[in-house]
Amino acid sequence: MAGSPRRAAGRRLQLPLLCLLLQGATAILFAVFVRYNPETDAALWHSGNRSSSDNEFYFRYPSFQDVHVMVCVGFGFLMAFLQRYGFSSVGFTFLLAAFALQWSTLIQGFFHSLHGGHIHVGVQSMINADFCAAAVLISFGAVLGKTGPAQLLLVALLEVLLFGVNEFVLLSLLGVKDAGGSMTIHTFGAYFGLVLSRVLYRPHLEKSKHRQGSIYHSDLFAMIGTIFLWTFWPSFNSAPTMLGDGQHRTTLNTYYSLTASTLSTFALSALVGEHGRLDMVHIQNAALAGGVVVGTSGEMMLTPFGALAAGFLAGTVSTLGYKFFTPVLEAKFKLQDTCGVHNLHGMPGVLGALLGVLVAGLATHEAYGDGLGSVFPLVAEGQRSATAQAMYQLFGLLVTLTFASVGGGLGGLLLRLPFLDPPPDSQCYEDRIYWEVPGELKDEAQGSLRAEETDTRA
Amino acid sequence: MAGSPRRAAGRRLQLPLLCLLLQGATAILFAVFVRYNPETDAALWHSGNRSSSDNEFYFRYPSFQDVHVMVCVGFGFLMAFLQRYGFSSVGFTFLLAAFALQWSTLIQGFFHSLHGGHIHVGVQSMINADFCAAAVLISFGAVLGKTGPAQLLLVALLEVLLFGVNEFVLLSLLGVKDAGGSMTIHTFGAYFGLVLSRVLYRPHLEKSKHRQGSIYHSDLFAMIGTIFLWTFWPSFNSAPTMLGDGQHRTTLNTYYSLTASTLSTFALSALVGEHGRLDMVHIQNAALAGGVVVGTSGEMMLTPFGALAAGFLAGTVSTLGYKFFTPVLEAKFKLQDTCGVHNLHGMPGVLGALLGVLVAGLATHEAYGDGLGSVFPLVAEGQRSATAQAMYQLFGLLVTLTFASVGGGLGGLLLRLPFLDPPPDSQCYEDRIYWEVPGELKDEAQGSLRAEETDTRA
Amino acid sequence: MAGSPRRAAGRRLQLPLLCLLLQGATAILFAVFVRYNPETDAALWHSGNRSSSDNEFYFRYPSFQDVHVMVCVGFGFLMAFLQRYGFSSVGFTFLLAAFALQWSTLIQGFFHSLHGGHIHVGVQSMINADFCAAAVLISFGAVLGKTGPAQLLLVALLEVLLFGVNEFVLLSLLGVKDAGGSMTIHTFGAYFGLVLSRVLYRPHLEKSKHRQGSIYHSDLFAMIGTIFLWTFWPSFNSAPTMLGDGQHRTTLNTYYSLTASTLSTFALSALVGEHGRLDMVHIQNAALAGGVVVGTSGEMMLTPFGALAAGFLAGTVSTLGYKFFTPVLEAKFKLQDTCGVHNLHGMPGVLGALLGVLVAGLATHEAYGDGLGSVFPLVAEGQRSATAQAMYQLFGLLVTLTFASVGGGLGGLLLRLPFLDPPPDSQCYEDRIYWEVPGELKDEAQGSLRAEETDTRA
Repeated sequence: MAGSPRRAAGRRLQLPLLCLLLQGATAILFAVFVRYNPETDAALWHSGNRSSSDNEFYFRYPSFQDVHVMVCVGFGFLMAFLQRYGFSSVGFTFLLAAFALQWSTLIQGFFHSLHGGHIHVGVQSMINADFCAAAVLISFGAVLGKTGPAQLLLVALLEVLLFGVNEFVLLSLLGVKDAGGSMTIHTFGAYFGLVLSRVLYRPHLEKSKHRQGSIYHSDLFAMIGTIFLWTFWPSFNSAPTMLGDGQHRTTLNTYYSLTASTLSTFALSALVGEHGRLDMVHIQNAALAGGVVVGTSGEMMLTPFGALAAGFLAGTVSTLGYKFFTPVLEAKFKLQDTCGVHNLHGMPGVLGALLGVLVAGLATHEAYGDGLGSVFPLVAEGQRSATAQAMYQLFGLLVTLTFASVGGGLGGLLLRLPFLDPPPDSQCYEDRIYWEVPGELKDEAQGSLRAEETDTRA
Repeated sequence: MAGSPRRAAGRRLQLPLLCLLLQGATAILFAVFVRYNPETDAALWHSGNRSSSDNEFYFRYPSFQDVHVMVCVGFGFLMAFLQRYGFSSVGFTFLLAAFALQWSTLIQGFFHSLHGGHIHVGVQSMINADFCAAAVLISFGAVLGKTGPAQLLLVALLEVLLFGVNEFVLLSLLGVKDAGGSMTIHTFGAYFGLVLSRVLYRPHLEKSKHRQGSIYHSDLFAMIGTIFLWTFWPSFNSAPTMLGDGQHRTTLNTYYSLTASTLSTFALSALVGEHGRLDMVHIQNAALAGGVVVGTSGEMMLTPFGALAAGFLAGTVSTLGYKFFTPVLEAKFKLQDTCGVHNLHGMPGVLGALLGVLVAGLATHEAYGDGLGSVFPLVAEGQRSATAQAMYQLFGLLVTLTFASVGGGLGGLLLRLPFLDPPPDSQCYEDRIYWEVPGELKDEAQGSLRAEETDTRA
Repeated sequence: MAGSPRRAAGRRLQLPLLCLLLQGATAILFAVFVRYNPETDAALWHSGNRSSSDNEFYFRYPSFQDVHVMVCVGFGFLMAFLQRYGFSSVGFTFLLAAFALQWSTLIQGFFHSLHGGHIHVGVQSMINADFCAAAVLISFGAVLGKTGPAQLLLVALLEVLLFGVNEFVLLSLLGVKDAGGSMTIHTFGAYFGLVLSRVLYRPHLEKSKHRQGSIYHSDLFAMIGTIFLWTFWPSFNSAPTMLGDGQHRTTLNTYYSLTASTLSTFALSALVGEHGRLDMVHIQNAALAGGVVVGTSGEMMLTPFGALAAGFLAGTVSTLGYKFFTPVLEAKFKLQDTCGVHNLHGMPGVLGALLGVLVAGLATHEAYGDGLGSVFPLVAEGQRSATAQAMYQLFGLLVTLTFASVGGGLGGLLLRLPFLDPPPDSQCYEDRIYWEVPGELKDEAQGSLRAEETDTRA
């Protein structure tokens, strides 16, 4: 009893203090390090004597905006399928994205765009920061409903750092290609989140089981997320690729892959469903696996048929994963994966990496012509054979799995620090702990908060 | 009784097998026929010695993305107004779009971009495929709630084919202008769907009447669809027009037309409503008629005033159609048009075609200057007079109405094949036949499925 | 009793007649005055011998579309937080936007793009018109739920006019910089709405108090608005700035500012909330203050750190405003501000104007190089010192506050005309007065309409 008021006061202060601390720190680092790049700075741009229409803004900003919608609207609403966790799904997505965008601007900037001691920022750094935020939100999906906002911010602090290191190792040190992030975003985010969730395993989570499902309207809100993700995924995979044919081809491949994963998801969902009924969980998630699976190979000469085949496979694996693999993961491996990120981002991400190995290994001068240099510069320059590039791609996957697993483990240990008050087992997937919930639920909320006090004291 | 389990098994397998079959077939056709076009292919693009910024991607992709949102988010949520059919509205939109995009890439490719035996694809083919998907979804609106997903896929198989033929006849053989598809998309989709619905007339549909309306939140979900359609319609009509002034002018005309159809819809809805109250059905639908009505003439020198007048007329006709004509269609012509596509796409589409006749007939060298060649190439080259162009436009409308009606009729006969299990009259507009519906409705669902069994046995 | 049927008939006719009258008037003015500009007109563009890729369309249209989504989807759904006013929030937003876009095309055209007696329109005029519509919708937020649609249209008629005058005085006469409209849009819209609301003060509004809050799902609908506003705000502030580095820099500053306002909003909301709980009202609104606060200075060399600091301050002030200032405004100043526009647009708008004063005053040739001319042409040309520019900026704020207050006052007097039937105190925040509300609420609606009759007769 004695600790209870102090504990309540602590919880009250944890989130605000952490937000203020993190914001203060990034602001100071911004003041010291972050500068407009030559495309954004008035003096530098105008000293260049270039036409306005050459500014990179016009080639990348529309794609950036689509990515930005995916990160904020797409991920936020996709996770709003839980019946009583919509405020947290959408709200914490918002909070995590805001912090991750700032923090990854710094981390990625240190690794990728340090010029004379300053980090240069522009539309490309905005795209990169959104990509990093996407990985953080994927991990969030694995622990959705089981962690508080202060915990999530701390994990993001760690994850953004490791994301930056892993990305640097792959793209800069190993010369791996991964424009749409099958490895750096999806595989990394998924396995980070899964290991995190494993470390935070809750044996008595069934106490919140009644809140773990959706209701009719929450499923429709989630479909807002799904459809925006599906629609804009071609922009996601193409946002950072080479200009011209590179962006063009990537959008086309992603578009075809997504149509195929949608058809295979409907097919498989009905096939394995009771009475042949479709399952909203599959449609909301597995239909998107086609975007994940061409994250690495989308910019390559995958061919339209290759895109269809890849998407079809990804939708199939993802749907079967939701149906058969997720229950096993929880029962046998103590892995509670709220959104099934293993099925949407984990397995399709690994498949996408392997597809990248295959397509890179098949790259020839004949197929790419003079465009080989823009897709595989090291191969075009003769520093590597296509087979060697394929091996580097494969090694990149292993590096990513390692960083993700170690990172998720560290994150889990961090979150087990006792003063980081997680929701009790009986109050998971519940907005009322963190949010003022409007009137209709008030009585129930108070009842439940009393229950919670009992629960935490026990 | 004896057939019941077999029948259930059949229903269970129909959708998955059809999805797999169709996907398999399009994948094989893709492997044989579909290739990257010179703007998308690494070797071809880089052999061209062109600047990245010349790639068509940068001129069309932002418009494509808006169209893509309209097709997936817009149509899907617009149809989610039904109280118990939101999963199907959004989900089957998703399924139909995914299939139609693949299939129409092939059909339109055969007609429009066959080069040396290969179909060339790029951003333009993506836009065209989305346009075809839009027509399929318009037809879906007429039979919404009364057909199953396997039936819908079969209809789409036929409709995409006929859409491609009709589009080829109009644009390539007749030299008709119809960038935003007043004829090829809206008129075609609407009358295809209406004839389809007529053939599938259900005399006892009143058994599902209690599910035919909206509830408060389903109307708000539908407004998501409406507002995205309204916002992005300028991109829809302009996506395939000539670059430069063509796209620019089309967006402007569409924008003005939509503001006017919105004002006339509010005016008429309040005027004919009980106690002067507005009707959500009108606002959700008729306010969009301004986009439909300038689908043909939007790229022409319609003038801003012309756009306002056209939009005003379309909103008026559409609202009055919902109020007075739809009940007559059902009572006298046995035409059950769930979403009122006759009012949103049928009449405004025909009006738009006629407006195109008028504006084309008034085209002069004086008004278009050297731009005449990009809007009416045959007139500019002296092969046709403006009046002749107008006559061709009119003939294009008749051709479209013919193809749409014959196609809808064939589609209806196809769907009456006995093994294509439609929902019984008492289970129309009901998600539970096709979807696992979350907990809150479970008991009711089971009761209702028992009722359904009785119903189908009877 | 005698007047009641006539009154009902009057109400029934007021909205339709006003819509038709306004549409007729703008259509005539369009016919007389509005013409395609040289980038949109077929003859003029093709006489220019320019490449299609030079058309301004390709530099501004993607930004325009984002702004258009913000105005229609963003504002509409943001205001849909009220439990029984979703139809009106989204629907009247739609109606007001449609009218304001037409009317402001005329008003802004008279002031800014009159060429030879004709108003020239194109993508720039579409952006400007959407900006004016945004100001109208901000004012709408202050009186949301307390005015009818006919009243709102009349106010918009006046507000668009004054918006145009104020904008002309600031941008053209005073040479003030305000690309993203901290002054012209946010400050103007907010104080216009606040004075309007003050004049329409309702002492017995507590009769509708039970409808003034949100419910769980209405808060999620509102979050759709919030997240789209948040995501697209960089496009809003940059849509009308100079091409090249100007647009690029503005998006970057806005993006950073919004991340900081989000973090400070979460921090402050939890800090001042009961039991440390977050308040959806804060998250939905104050998190956006970062976009408002850099509306003036976003195109300037604010620096990334400056953007973070500004956003942080705006989120803080806005959240504290919702918590502590709004109740005082109502209790002491009789100011009923439904959406808290004072906190989201008023205070952050004034702060943004003052930030513009500061950043303009610090402008040097060293910081801007040859780009000084595109941000501060009068300073670059030597007609003004940076300090003088700062003073003009400050004067612009005062002018805006004056126009807004006088305008809001006039608007209020206009709306107190007795024949403009406002909803009675007991029927505020209630869709059923203006809309056919679907079945589930019908009985209640009839009961409530009887209550309303009693109320209005009393």
